[in-house]
Amino acid sequence: MTESSKSAEAVWAAEPSTLLRVGPHFRLSDVDPAATPGFDGDEADGKRELRRTNSELADLQERLWAESRFGGERSVLLLLQAMDTAGKGGILRHVVGGVDPQGISIHAFKAPTEAEKAHDFLWRVRRELPAAGMIGVFDRSHYEDVLIHRVRGFSPPDVIERRYGMINDFESQVEQAGTSIIKVMLHISHDEQKRRLSQRLERPEKNWKYNPGDVDERMFWPDYMDAYQAAFERTSTDVASWHVVPADHKWYARVAVQRLLLQTLREIDPHWPAANYDVEFEKKRLAAS
Amino acid sequence: MTESSKSAEAVWAAEPSTLLRVGPHFRLSDVDPAATPGFDGDEADGKRELRRTNSELADLQERLWAESRFGGERSVLLLLQAMDTAGKGGILRHVVGGVDPQGISIHAFKAPTEAEKAHDFLWRVRRELPAAGMIGVFDRSHYEDVLIHRVRGFSPPDVIERRYGMINDFESQVEQAGTSIIKVMLHISHDEQKRRLSQRLERPEKNWKYNPGDVDERMFWPDYMDAYQAAFERTSTDVASWHVVPADHKWYARVAVQRLLLQTLREIDPHWPAANYDVEFEKKRLAAS
Repeated sequence: MTESSKSAEAVWAAEPSTLLRVGPHFRLSDVDPAATPGFDGDEADGKRELRRTNSELADLQERLWAESRFGGERSVLLLLQAMDTAGKGGILRHVVGGVDPQGISIHAFKAPTEAEKAHDFLWRVRRELPAAGMIGVFDRSHYEDVLIHRVRGFSPPDVIERRYGMINDFESQVEQAGTSIIKVMLHISHDEQKRRLSQRLERPEKNWKYNPGDVDERMFWPDYMDAYQAAFERTSTDVASWHVVPADHKWYARVAVQRLLLQTLREIDPHWPAANYDVEFEKKRLAAS
Repeated sequence: MTESSKSAEAVWAAEPSTLLRVGPHFRLSDVDPAATPGFDGDEADGKRELRRTNSELADLQERLWAESRFGGERSVLLLLQAMDTAGKGGILRHVVGGVDPQGISIHAFKAPTEAEKAHDFLWRVRRELPAAGMIGVFDRSHYEDVLIHRVRGFSPPDVIERRYGMINDFESQVEQAGTSIIKVMLHISHDEQKRRLSQRLERPEKNWKYNPGDVDERMFWPDYMDAYQAAFERTSTDVASWHVVPADHKWYARVAVQRLLLQTLREIDPHWPAANYDVEFEKKRLAAS
């Protein structure tokens, strides 16, 4: 590692992939949403790091894409879950938006349509899995079927219970097919959500972002925290572990998710494919054309 | 218009939407691919203008999206056609990439699959039309069915002939449904294509971008120009006109396409939706939560 890249790396005193990972004995209630674990710097450093890392991320994504054109089967899936206003949109704009849009497929899972309800809960999710070479992003996901479904009683407990196992089997298949899964919960505090919802009501040009249903869901905050805790315990596996990212500081959440994505792509370590044609021959053909 | 915005606008001495528009008596062979029509500046000015305009574009797109959440049905479709290496990818990275990725849907049309061939040529195109609030981008399109199909004889002349009319009817329906269509041909010279293909062969990390088929297509250059000319004459309508963008200078092509997109969004003039709930009542509910 050269001196200059070492100093650029030095903002991370420890890796979010380790620090934020949901392991045994994890308690969501122990996480401080206002913390900035592992990051040795302030907001200005965070924003600088975000910009600086964009080009490496874009380069790795292009390699992943190039590889797929020559038979590579690998892809990445970034799955985002969070309470309202936690900053999923900001991650999409500022982290995912730094990569070539041709290499990104984003899908926002809303309340299921009648057609989707006619199938098992993973049906619509399978259809949106990233193709080889792509970074897929799920804005919400199949976890809604064990979160809001549990909190609001949309499904009975035995069905929810069965879904944890189905999810683990599903994610294991997805990984075996070549997709690296990064599961992220953006974690804000109850107070910070109030501040952010309040801004949407105070500023007329933000009114459209507010939905009265947001406060309905907010009333169930403790139940949601319990549902997340249960989901983490049952589905943070070696194959696809959860990461809880403190998100009261937007800049930290962004740079931490960017780092998770970066480390995943570095581990995949995609290479520029070698030509599968005769380069010298093609040079002559081109020259004559 | 304020002084400061006037000076920012001043790089465009005339609008690409007028200058580059394919009207009656247009001849593709009269267009100089190395020209920079309407732009009063050099490469550095072009790059500055590209960065400067990103934020207005992003703002307009967010308004378009917001409008759609409250019943708005409008969307934009940017359709890109070009000879290989003309710079479609650069437009996607540098122009489209400046907008929130949640508001963009990109589809690259490749050689049709067997399933797609089992339907009429517009079937797969309809499926990829942008939803309300979105900017859709077609990387190639239904025009392949009157371009390569004509040049390579994949379809007989009477079928091609019929398709022009089908395309006009189709695009007219799309516009009536609320989608503003911007049709762009990026126009490079035969020599510039040779230089760009040659770079892909010279630089090992670019080898994967080269396909021997690219030179095969290059051999048919004059036939492609004829096919474009015919397509322009038959399908540059008042509803959905073509724009031929000189593309030997990548910076010009990018800033010109950005301007076309910007002007279309300005014409749509989307507004922040008004709240459809009682703001004061919600403030009280939130405060109590």
